[in-house]
Amino acid sequence: MADPVEMVELWRGPFLESVHRGHAVVCDASGRIVAAWGDPEQLIFPRSSCKMIQALPLVESGAAGAFGLTQEHLALSCASHNGAAIHTDRVNRWLSDLGMTDADLRCGTQVPDDKEAKFALIRSHAEPCQVHNNCSGKHAGFLTFGKHMGWGPEYTEIDHPLQQEIRTVFSEVTGLDTPGYGIDGCSAPNFATTVHGLARAMAFFAKAQPDAASARERAAAALREAMVTYPELVAGEGRACTELMRAMGGKVAIKTGAEAVFTAILPEQGLGVALKIVDGATRASECAIAAILVKLGVLDAAHPATRKRMNAAVLSRRGLEAGVIKPAAALLA
Amino acid sequence: MADPVEMVELWRGPFLESVHRGHAVVCDASGRIVAAWGDPEQLIFPRSSCKMIQALPLVESGAAGAFGLTQEHLALSCASHNGAAIHTDRVNRWLSDLGMTDADLRCGTQVPDDKEAKFALIRSHAEPCQVHNNCSGKHAGFLTFGKHMGWGPEYTEIDHPLQQEIRTVFSEVTGLDTPGYGIDGCSAPNFATTVHGLARAMAFFAKAQPDAASARERAAAALREAMVTYPELVAGEGRACTELMRAMGGKVAIKTGAEAVFTAILPEQGLGVALKIVDGATRASECAIAAILVKLGVLDAAHPATRKRMNAAVLSRRGLEAGVIKPAAALLA
Repeated sequence: MADPVEMVELWRGPFLESVHRGHAVVCDASGRIVAAWGDPEQLIFPRSSCKMIQALPLVESGAAGAFGLTQEHLALSCASHNGAAIHTDRVNRWLSDLGMTDADLRCGTQVPDDKEAKFALIRSHAEPCQVHNNCSGKHAGFLTFGKHMGWGPEYTEIDHPLQQEIRTVFSEVTGLDTPGYGIDGCSAPNFATTVHGLARAMAFFAKAQPDAASARERAAAALREAMVTYPELVAGEGRACTELMRAMGGKVAIKTGAEAVFTAILPEQGLGVALKIVDGATRASECAIAAILVKLGVLDAAHPATRKRMNAAVLSRRGLEAGVIKPAAALLA
Repeated sequence: MADPVEMVELWRGPFLESVHRGHAVVCDASGRIVAAWGDPEQLIFPRSSCKMIQALPLVESGAAGAFGLTQEHLALSCASHNGAAIHTDRVNRWLSDLGMTDADLRCGTQVPDDKEAKFALIRSHAEPCQVHNNCSGKHAGFLTFGKHMGWGPEYTEIDHPLQQEIRTVFSEVTGLDTPGYGIDGCSAPNFATTVHGLARAMAFFAKAQPDAASARERAAAALREAMVTYPELVAGEGRACTELMRAMGGKVAIKTGAEAVFTAILPEQGLGVALKIVDGATRASECAIAAILVKLGVLDAAHPATRKRMNAAVLSRRGLEAGVIKPAAALLA
C-alpha cells in the first residue's frame, strides 16, 4: 500500500501553490508491470476511462455488425463528447436508425461543453436533451446491444442482463473480479477495479488483433481503431483526448474519466496505461498522462497539444503569465 | 514540516473515490495556535481569501471616509462576487462616482458566474466587462485609494505605491514579512504567507474594535462588519460565503480564495481561521471550512447551508444519489 506520488504541480511566481498526487501503472497484457507510481493495487472507479470496455459486448456479441454500426458509431460508444453538433447529429441519427428517440436514453440531460451548441441552446431558450450528455454515444451503444438481445429498456439497472454482461467482461479483461460498483454521472453502474487492473485491460486492447480467432479480441481491436480514427468524436475540439490522439498520429488511443482517471492503449508497444489523481482534478490527470506518454516515447514533448497539458500557462484574466502547471519530478525522471 | 492532513472525502457507492488533503490553523490575535491540522508554517498564496487585508489601507488611510464609501462599498471591496446585477450595478455606480469607467479597472474581463447575468450577455451577443470580474469591487477600492493619494493609474504593478502599502500592511497583520508575491487571477499582486500568518491576520480582524484608538483596528472592524452585514455582496446567491455567513447570523465573516483557500473571522471568540487544500479544489475548501466552523460552535451542522457543504450529495445527471462529499475523520474528531 504505497502512498500516492506527487505527479503535478502548480507554480505561481516563485512558489509552489498547489500539488496533485496520484497512482499510475504501465503494464503488458499479462499484467507484468513495466512502470508504476504510487500503489498499483489502489482501488478506483475508472469512470469514463473504461468506456471501451463497456462497449466490448456491443461488438463481441455481433450486435454492432447486425445493426451495421460504423467506426463513427464505435468511436461515439467510447466517447465523453462535448455535445457539439458533430456528436449530437450522429447520436440522433443512430437513435432514429434504432427506431428510438432521445426519450429512450437513460443518461440524463447535460449542458454541452461545446460553446456553439451551448450558446445556441441559451439563445433559443431551450433546455439540453439527453443526446447532449457526454455519454449519449455509450448509451446509444447500450440500446443497440439491448435491442439485439431483446432485453428490456431499464438498461442502467445493475441487475439488467446488459450490466451483468458488462460486469463479467470487465472482470475478465481487468483480470480481477470487480469488488463492486458505484453509480456514474450518466446513471449507469461503474465497476471498481485497481489501477493495475485497468492498465491490464488497456494492454489487452493494445495487443488485440483485428483478425484474431477470439471475437473479444477482434471487438477490442475494432474499438481501438475507431477511437484513433475519429479522435474528434471521442471528445471534441480543444479537448485533451482529441488533441493528444491527433498529436500521436493515430498510434495510441487515450481516454479520460471523471475524477481524474486516464487510460492509454499503445498497440505498437503492447502496453496499457492507467492513472488516477487522488483528488479528482482533471487538469492534473491530463498533465500526468501527457508526461507518461512522452516518457514512453509515443508523444512529442514539443508538440503544441503536449505543451498545453505538460506546461500549461496559468494566465491572469488580462492574459498575464502568472504561473504554470507541470509534471512533478517523479514523472520526469 | 508536517504533511497535509486528509480533510475531505468523496465516496461513491461503497468506495472512497477521491480525497483532499490540507493545512488549517485556528489562532488568536497573538498568534497562539488553538487548533491546527497539517503544517501551520506551510507557505501559501491566500488569493482572494485575504481581500479584507488588501482593503485595509483603503479604510485606514481615510480614503473610504473621504469618498463617502458605505458598508455596501466595503463589502464589495472584500468580495469575490458572481457578477450579478446587484454587484455590477453597484460597482458601475461606484466607478461613476469616482469620475471613472470600466476602462479604468485593471482586473480583466470575466464571464459572470451569475446565471441570469451570463445568459443575458450571451443572448445579446455581448462580451463581459471588467465590472463582471469577481474582483471588480476590490479594484474599485484600489482606484478609490489611489485617487485619494493622487497616485498613477498603474495600480496593479508591484512597484506602485498602492501595492507597496498593501505589502507593508499584509506583513504587519500576518506577523510575518512576506517572502514574495505572485500574480493573481485579477492581475494584482498576491502576497505569500503561511497558513498560520493568514489565521493570525484573521484573528486581528476578529479582535478589532470599531472604537479602537488605532485607525487600522477601526478599519478592520468596519470591513468585518460590512462583510457580515452584506453577505450577498461578498459572493452571491447560492455561494458558500453568502449562505454560510447568513447561516451564522452575522456573527462570523468568511472568505473563499482560488486554489482552495478559506478564511474565517470569529469576533466573539477573538479567533481567526485559515485553511488551504493542497490540490486547490474549492469543493474541499468549502467542506473543510464548514466542518471547522461547526467544530468551533459557530455554525449549526443541521443548517441546510452547512449540510450542502459538509455532506454534499453527489448526484447523477438523472438525479440519482451516487455519493457524498464529506469531512474526513480529522475534521470531525
